This record gives sequence, C-alpha cells and structure tokens, in this order.
Amino acid sequence: MSTKLEERQKQRQDEIITAARRCFRASGFHAASMSQIASEAKLSVGQIYRYFSNKDAIIEEMIRRIIDSRIEGMQDKTVVEGMPQALAWRKTINADDDALMLEMSAEATRNPQVAAMLTAAEARMFTNACAHLKKQFPHLSDEHVRCCVEITAVMIEGTIYRRLTPLKVPSEQLEPIYQNILNMLFSAK
Amino acid sequence: MSTKLEERQKQRQDEIITAARRCFRASGFHAASMSQIASEAKLSVGQIYRYFSNKDAIIEEMIRRIIDSRIEGMQDKTVVEGMPQALAWRKTINADDDALMLEMSAEATRNPQVAAMLTAAEARMFTNACAHLKKQFPHLSDEHVRCCVEITAVMIEGTIYRRLTPLKVPSEQLEPIYQNILNMLFSAK
Repeated sequence: MSTKLEERQKQRQDEIITAARRCFRASGFHAASMSQIASEAKLSVGQIYRYFSNKDAIIEEMIRRIIDSRIEGMQDKTVVEGMPQALAWRKTINADDDALMLEMSAEATRNPQVAAMLTAAEARMFTNACAHLKKQFPHLSDEHVRCCVEITAVMIEGTIYRRLTPLKVPSEQLEPIYQNILNMLFSAK
Repeated sequence: MSTKLEERQKQRQDEIITAARRCFRASGFHAASMSQIASEAKLSVGQIYRYFSNKDAIIEEMIRRIIDSRIEGMQDKTVVEGMPQALAWRKTINADDDALMLEMSAEATRNPQVAAMLTAAEARMFTNACAHLKKQFPHLSDEHVRCCVEITAVMIEGTIYRRLTPLKVPSEQLEPIYQNILNMLFSAK
C-alpha cells in the first residue's frame, strides 16, 4: 500500500470520527445514524462503509481514541501533583470527550455491544493507570495500587459527572481535603 | 374536587410516569416520544396531555420522584454507617433510577431545559444532605459540612457510574479504605 494512500485513508477515517462526534453531541446516540454521519462528513454512505462496517465500529474507534488521549494525558503527570486541583476545580482535559463518554454510558445500560466496548476501554485505562502509579509509588503493594486506582477513578468519574451542575463549595476549601485523601491513599502500605 | 377523582388522577399520573420510564430505558431520551409514552401507558395522546403539557413536564416529574426517593433513602441511615459498604460493594437503592439519571445527564449536555431540571434536583438533594449530616455531626462547621456533602456526592456518583464496568478489586479491600476516608472527613473541624 502506498504511503500516500495510507495517509489519505487515515485522513478520511479522522473526518468520519469527527463527524460522528458532532452528530452524537448534537442529537444523542440514537438520533445519529450512518447516513447522518455520512452527510455531516460530506461523504456518501457507501464511502463511510469502506472505512467502517457499521455504527458500532465507528463508536469503537471513537472510544479507542478518547481512551488513548486520556492515557496520554496521564503520562506527563504524577498522580498526587495536580489531582487535588483537578478534582477541586473540576478541571477536564476535554469536555466533549466527557460528554461523549456519558452518552455512551447511558446507551451501555441498554445495549450489550456498547457495554462491552466500555468494559474493554475501562480495563485498558485501569491497567495503564496501575502501571503509571506503581512507577511513582514502587513501595505500594500491587493490591493496594489497584485499590488506589479504583478510588481515584471513582473520584474522577464522580467529578466529571457532577460538572453538569454548579459547584456549591469554594474550590479552595475542597483542595486541601482532596490532598489529604490522596496523601492517605498513597502513604499506605 | 372529589377524593375519588383525585385518586383516579394520581393513578393515571403514576401510570404515565411508569410508562415514560419504560420508554426511556428501552429506547433512550430521543426515541421516546409523547405518542410512544401514550401507547406504552395504553392511553391516547390527548389523555396524556391532560396530565402533562409536554415531554419536559413528564421528565420533571420523573426526576422529582427519583430525588424524593433518594432523599427518603438517606433519612433512615447515618452517613458513616453503611456508606463504606455501599461504595465498596457498589450497592444501589434503585438501578433503574440510576440509569434514568444517567440518560437525563447525557441529554443535559445538549439540552438547557433538562440541564436546568438536573441543577434544581441536585440543589434540593444537596440541601437535604447538608441538613441530614449536620444533625449527625453538629460540631462540624456549615462550610465543612458542605465540603463533606460534595465529596461524598462525588464518591457516590463515581461509584454509580463505574457500576457499568466490572469491579477489579475485592470489595473487602476497598471497604476499610472508604471507611478511613469518611472517618477523616467527619472528624475534621
């Protein structure tokens, strides 16, 4: 396969994913059909099917990219630095990614295919987070590392979810409390 | 208004909400229309409009009932008792309510009406939780009580969200860690 063709195919794939993201954001999971995605990407439905065999394949690739970007975003940070601020100030790397994951999660409650994709994505994220944490805290047992990842994941997901409604506490007051929680987690055996 | 008529109206309202919940669970926010809800409730669309002026009014009543039930569920428990287990074992009061709230939250990212309903519902829940906590821990400052409610809400919402994918840590290991976090929260000034 020529490099130019590969590049062209990669670019088309990107355009389709971008269009799909816009459709899901604008109209939700069910209202976004293959033909709507094609029209948004300014391609024919036939062209879309050359790259993705169905809507599930588009969703799978979209989730894969979101998880890749979350894993990448994790790499340049230590866990304790930055995390209390991120939680207290409800910071996000990408609000659109968060909204799309929320959409996929709502769909997962009724759609086993999407539930399986989320399960696989979350397992990949979890494994990466454990490895990342273990590097920073080599003295922690593997078991405790997994508990730390679970609890920080709970706090991150809960914070993302609660970003939908206004924060009722000054972030300055929350930050030291989150700092204490994380210190306690990572100072354990 | 006669009591019999009131009862009849209450019963009809219940039937419509039950039907709407089933529609939203089965097909998502957008796929559930007024006529689909009417058909699920075995009523005419005209009859539905006698009780609810539009789909938003049905959603508002549905959310109100979910929040009422969550507030009621909170009353019989102290916060520290039960909470670490609930988090570690990912217990829920009502999984259908959780899924419906997830559906409404996904919709709230694009729909200002639904976002406003969630904001009002969350504010009511937050105020109730603060009052409930203050009764149990009268020595805590109002400010700290609000921080505690925010952080426990983050942990509860995060746990609900993560229930969609399998837990990768034994609950027995998580429970004492959650217990420590809550002890730390509620022993502060």
